[in-house]
Amino acid sequence: MSTPSASHKRGKAVRDGVLAAAVNELLNTGFDGVTIASVAEAAGVHVTSVYRRWRTKEQLITDALLNHIDPAIEIPDTGDLRRDLVELTSNLHESLSSPQSKAMLRLASMPLEIDRLEEARRRVLDARMDAMGVVLDRAVERGEIDAAVDRRLALEFLHAPIYTRVLLTRDQVDEAYIGGLVDLLLDGVRAH
Amino acid sequence: MSTPSASHKRGKAVRDGVLAAAVNELLNTGFDGVTIASVAEAAGVHVTSVYRRWRTKEQLITDALLNHIDPAIEIPDTGDLRRDLVELTSNLHESLSSPQSKAMLRLASMPLEIDRLEEARRRVLDARMDAMGVVLDRAVERGEIDAAVDRRLALEFLHAPIYTRVLLTRDQVDEAYIGGLVDLLLDGVRAH
Repeated sequence: MSTPSASHKRGKAVRDGVLAAAVNELLNTGFDGVTIASVAEAAGVHVTSVYRRWRTKEQLITDALLNHIDPAIEIPDTGDLRRDLVELTSNLHESLSSPQSKAMLRLASMPLEIDRLEEARRRVLDARMDAMGVVLDRAVERGEIDAAVDRRLALEFLHAPIYTRVLLTRDQVDEAYIGGLVDLLLDGVRAH
Repeated sequence: MSTPSASHKRGKAVRDGVLAAAVNELLNTGFDGVTIASVAEAAGVHVTSVYRRWRTKEQLITDALLNHIDPAIEIPDTGDLRRDLVELTSNLHESLSSPQSKAMLRLASMPLEIDRLEEARRRVLDARMDAMGVVLDRAVERGEIDAAVDRRLALEFLHAPIYTRVLLTRDQVDEAYIGGLVDLLLDGVRAH
């Protein structure tokens, strides 16, 4: 195997720099204000270096969005479902709390007509859901939950309130809140 | 008691027309693009008629937002908690599904620094939550759920996936999905 060449490394550095600049430009000026020229200038590269990799602003923004949404949230494995779910939800909340992440969430909520964006967003969400589903798979093996439980629905149910608070109501998300959500998911409200 | 004067009625018609025009302008151009002049023109009134009621664009947009978010979602009373929750959630989804409502949700997610907006948004959310809580109060009276259940948390838990799908993932919300959410809220995932 050959080691990465110097030009390959330089290419990756340019790519990362341009994508980071694109995220910052989005934060500062919003989608309409971003241009390939403004991103190139912010990244300190020639505009042709950007056009070589991304033909349109839409492609550049799509990659910046996907590059920023890191699907690798840490997946806990404490041996106990409740603790796993509390940790997982805290990790998700932390990953959404930076100004960059919030700006990206807002961007994701815009009705942008970008070819690859819808498919790419779907792929990232799917990958994240699959990764988190492991926590529920382990709970099935331990007999804590029934195998018939719809794991994606359960995770969506648990995490939608976090998205809603971060993006919409801006109510605080703390340990007590996350604990309350997990308990509701585990036991429901019905009197037994 | 006197009946409303003609000038009072005319004033209300102007107000409603301006607020509706403000919503449309927001939909068409986004927050940055709206001006009091463009709203006045779209509403077919003189710009001074707008300035007389709203001193700033921010005040106008706040009122347009509040005027549009109608907190009066129909509250079902079928005598059965599951059916009540399914109907309530369907009603919420329906109220969020118009292009205007989606645009308003996106606007609500923007980090706008508008004086009265935060307080007004809180007031609307509180009023809506109190109205919907009646469904859970009745279930407590019937013995279907325990009085200790946190009603606001339960409703937030049930409705956050609707907001998230409408605003963020754009996955479909249908009867089966809503039924699945309600069953999760009622019984949780824990094996008994």
